[in-house]
Amino acid sequence: MMKLKMFKFSFGFFKVPFKSFKKLQRKNYKVIDEQDIDYFKSVIAKDDVITNESDLIFFNTDWLKKYVGNAPVVLRPKTTEQISKILNYCNQKKIAVVPQGGNTGLVGGSVPVFDEVIINLSKMNKIISHDELTSTLHCEAGCILENLKNYVDALGQTMPIDLGAKGSCFIGGNLATNAGGIHFVKYGSMRKNCKGLKAVLADGSIIDSMSPLPKNNTGYDLKQIFIGSEGTLGIITECLIQTHPKMKNIELAIIALDKFTDVLKIYEQLKEEMGDLISAIEFFDNYSLIIQERHGRMNPLQEKNNFYLIIEIGSYSIDLNLKDILEDFLSKIDLKDGVIAQDEWQKKKIWDLRETIAEGASKEGLVLSYDISLPLPKFYEIVEETRRRVGYLAEVIAYGHIGDNNLHLNVCYNKFVKDENFHILESIMEPFVYDYIKDVKGSISAEHGIGICKSEYLNRSQTSDSIELMKIIKNALDPNGILNPYKIIN
Amino acid sequence: MMKLKMFKFSFGFFKVPFKSFKKLQRKNYKVIDEQDIDYFKSVIAKDDVITNESDLIFFNTDWLKKYVGNAPVVLRPKTTEQISKILNYCNQKKIAVVPQGGNTGLVGGSVPVFDEVIINLSKMNKIISHDELTSTLHCEAGCILENLKNYVDALGQTMPIDLGAKGSCFIGGNLATNAGGIHFVKYGSMRKNCKGLKAVLADGSIIDSMSPLPKNNTGYDLKQIFIGSEGTLGIITECLIQTHPKMKNIELAIIALDKFTDVLKIYEQLKEEMGDLISAIEFFDNYSLIIQERHGRMNPLQEKNNFYLIIEIGSYSIDLNLKDILEDFLSKIDLKDGVIAQDEWQKKKIWDLRETIAEGASKEGLVLSYDISLPLPKFYEIVEETRRRVGYLAEVIAYGHIGDNNLHLNVCYNKFVKDENFHILESIMEPFVYDYIKDVKGSISAEHGIGICKSEYLNRSQTSDSIELMKIIKNALDPNGILNPYKIIN
Repeated sequence: MMKLKMFKFSFGFFKVPFKSFKKLQRKNYKVIDEQDIDYFKSVIAKDDVITNESDLIFFNTDWLKKYVGNAPVVLRPKTTEQISKILNYCNQKKIAVVPQGGNTGLVGGSVPVFDEVIINLSKMNKIISHDELTSTLHCEAGCILENLKNYVDALGQTMPIDLGAKGSCFIGGNLATNAGGIHFVKYGSMRKNCKGLKAVLADGSIIDSMSPLPKNNTGYDLKQIFIGSEGTLGIITECLIQTHPKMKNIELAIIALDKFTDVLKIYEQLKEEMGDLISAIEFFDNYSLIIQERHGRMNPLQEKNNFYLIIEIGSYSIDLNLKDILEDFLSKIDLKDGVIAQDEWQKKKIWDLRETIAEGASKEGLVLSYDISLPLPKFYEIVEETRRRVGYLAEVIAYGHIGDNNLHLNVCYNKFVKDENFHILESIMEPFVYDYIKDVKGSISAEHGIGICKSEYLNRSQTSDSIELMKIIKNALDPNGILNPYKIIN
Repeated sequence: MMKLKMFKFSFGFFKVPFKSFKKLQRKNYKVIDEQDIDYFKSVIAKDDVITNESDLIFFNTDWLKKYVGNAPVVLRPKTTEQISKILNYCNQKKIAVVPQGGNTGLVGGSVPVFDEVIINLSKMNKIISHDELTSTLHCEAGCILENLKNYVDALGQTMPIDLGAKGSCFIGGNLATNAGGIHFVKYGSMRKNCKGLKAVLADGSIIDSMSPLPKNNTGYDLKQIFIGSEGTLGIITECLIQTHPKMKNIELAIIALDKFTDVLKIYEQLKEEMGDLISAIEFFDNYSLIIQERHGRMNPLQEKNNFYLIIEIGSYSIDLNLKDILEDFLSKIDLKDGVIAQDEWQKKKIWDLRETIAEGASKEGLVLSYDISLPLPKFYEIVEETRRRVGYLAEVIAYGHIGDNNLHLNVCYNKFVKDENFHILESIMEPFVYDYIKDVKGSISAEHGIGICKSEYLNRSQTSDSIELMKIIKNALDPNGILNPYKIIN
């Protein structure tokens, strides 16, 4: 499970903490009554209609405890047909709903803003099959990613996605948010690895886009509409996922570099010489390392420098001497320091150093965290500019999946900056970060999505014509706006 | 250029030849008048407003000369903004239009059915740039695929798509039809390789979905809507395409197998042992070979058998001894005969044998040709069933991209079956083929699309709810239905 800082705000748990929430008005949806609850109980098991207040808190609160909604009922259907009936009913009555997977999202997309009914997918967790011939996993949307990973691992296969929240997140949520993760550079997005899905529209229609055929040009590819739409266009209930043969041969190196231009040069050479042998290229700066060392993490390198790259290459063939290839590559470039892991323990230590940076930062105090994407030549400029802005008030650290242009920019405030200032600091920092991104044609959300958290900044990464088209599509598919309202677009 | 048989029908050139056309009624679009022509001439160069009847024939006729429309005018805009103005005008006046690329489609999607205005993209053929760092090609939609291929080749890169029509087809059309081709098994679909595009909606709005960032989860991924929609939702005018480093090391083998179950077994083992080294797995049956031999093609194998596989593996690394790997693999399987190409000439001969099957078949006489996709265990059954049905009347041959489940099923009628019977034979064969595909959950169009040719059979590969949703999307984006009417859905 991803370890994330639980922010403790000075205001009470159930108050809506953020400005984005404050601006919103509840839309004119029907308020749930006893009759509605009775209807839900006629469709799904009574135990799966949760109305007990103490149980509701759990479902109403997001992963970061940053967003808390007020759903009066949580429904846990077991079949696509049950979801179809529920949505058809809600659509007729104009009852708003929030689809909820593992609730591990970081942008408040999977909890209600007001009193939307939660449709939780946790009871739809059947692994249906894995087809060896086509390497296709067939499962329900409520399966936990780690369970799927273990299932296909035993078959000599690997899932195309791996991320910190794997112990809790659901595959349906991974699809609905087009989740990224550490193997993106090798296998690509969830979109690229989704071979089929079933989704229920707002009116209850079931869209069966479950053909596992690699080529199928028969009209619009409807599954694309649901992937990445964060539950605003339909509820994904079932899917077919491309799995990949496990790599038999993996080597890992960490190298230290002086200038960011060196980082880019190496990245380009790596792509040129290694091609699809590359399975990860991760990046962090020395400010990140300083924080990690402060918390006792081991640095395998003898000499420090300004930037670090972790390079993983892998192959399906054991005949390939990857260590030689990596050594040969590294010997040709001008390195101050670099290490190739000699065993599994060393590999683990190197990965730990990178993967625990977020955790390390959270130990320092209040952290503002941005999941952004920028063209590589601009990748580090925003970090330096942010550093100039915050001065001595904070340490600015940068790390991320450089192979995917994905930067995690963290502003770690000094201990004397109190938690209750979070909200003011964020309101100062957000417009700067997102306007900067707009100027360099970056993305305000690389992998986490928009949800409620970034919806007011959507125009920093999308033109007004594009946002208008999103509204046209939303309105065509969900004319009553019952599906995950207030999220992405308003 | 792909060599395709030009069918000579007994009815006149400008008559609508097919049943699918006969059923259609012209919808109530405005008929073009002088004022409209004057408007077009005010937006684009006069020379690019073509109204001369002898010139129009070329644009009105599809590649196979199977479909002939009656557009009174062809427009050749040079910019996205000009297309925006034209569409905005046409939308207001309810003038129907057909976007046209290289006009190499095989389902009649790029020519008018009645008197729709042709918007031909041939004047938008600028290659804008190639970004080395991200391997991204930026170009206009009217670029010919082969020109792009030559351009990136010189940079040590390769295009993700390669197909027979590359000398004529446009990249915009490749995107609009989500084209496949011979490298699909290695690089995937056009959808997977499109990093961005610009499209103009029916009302003239310009959708700029041109972010080349690998990760960008900021709302709905609008480019997905236009890819594969065959010009019915918008006109693609510009794009960003992922290119790939050229493979440095390629080996090719051809093997003969006894049973189709052997084909599947080898395919599975290949995937398991070679992983992403595989760059092509092509298939043909002995009936195809017999036709090829009749036309003097060389068969490099000593012994004949029922099925043949061509296996190409490739690597970016020259350190990998692919020949050893391939030899090792082939020595472990029980083969009647197999050959590894020893030089470029042998490679070319093996590829020729496969790539000229369609041409060989067309020399025999009247051919019905189906581009279909089936689950692999069912892949060859339809061929045998078709063979039983046609008896001595025709030779039934099967070949295709087995790595993509893509079968080209050709029914080659004997010479005494006259061309004018095409239409009757097709009307007998089509329902059988497409119903069979429906039963086995295959696809009636693997890579060619639906166009006008297969629209009445769309329900064999899509549910009624899915077709309904396609209509909702079409209606939302193009409420007046001016964009490529009568195609895909009606």
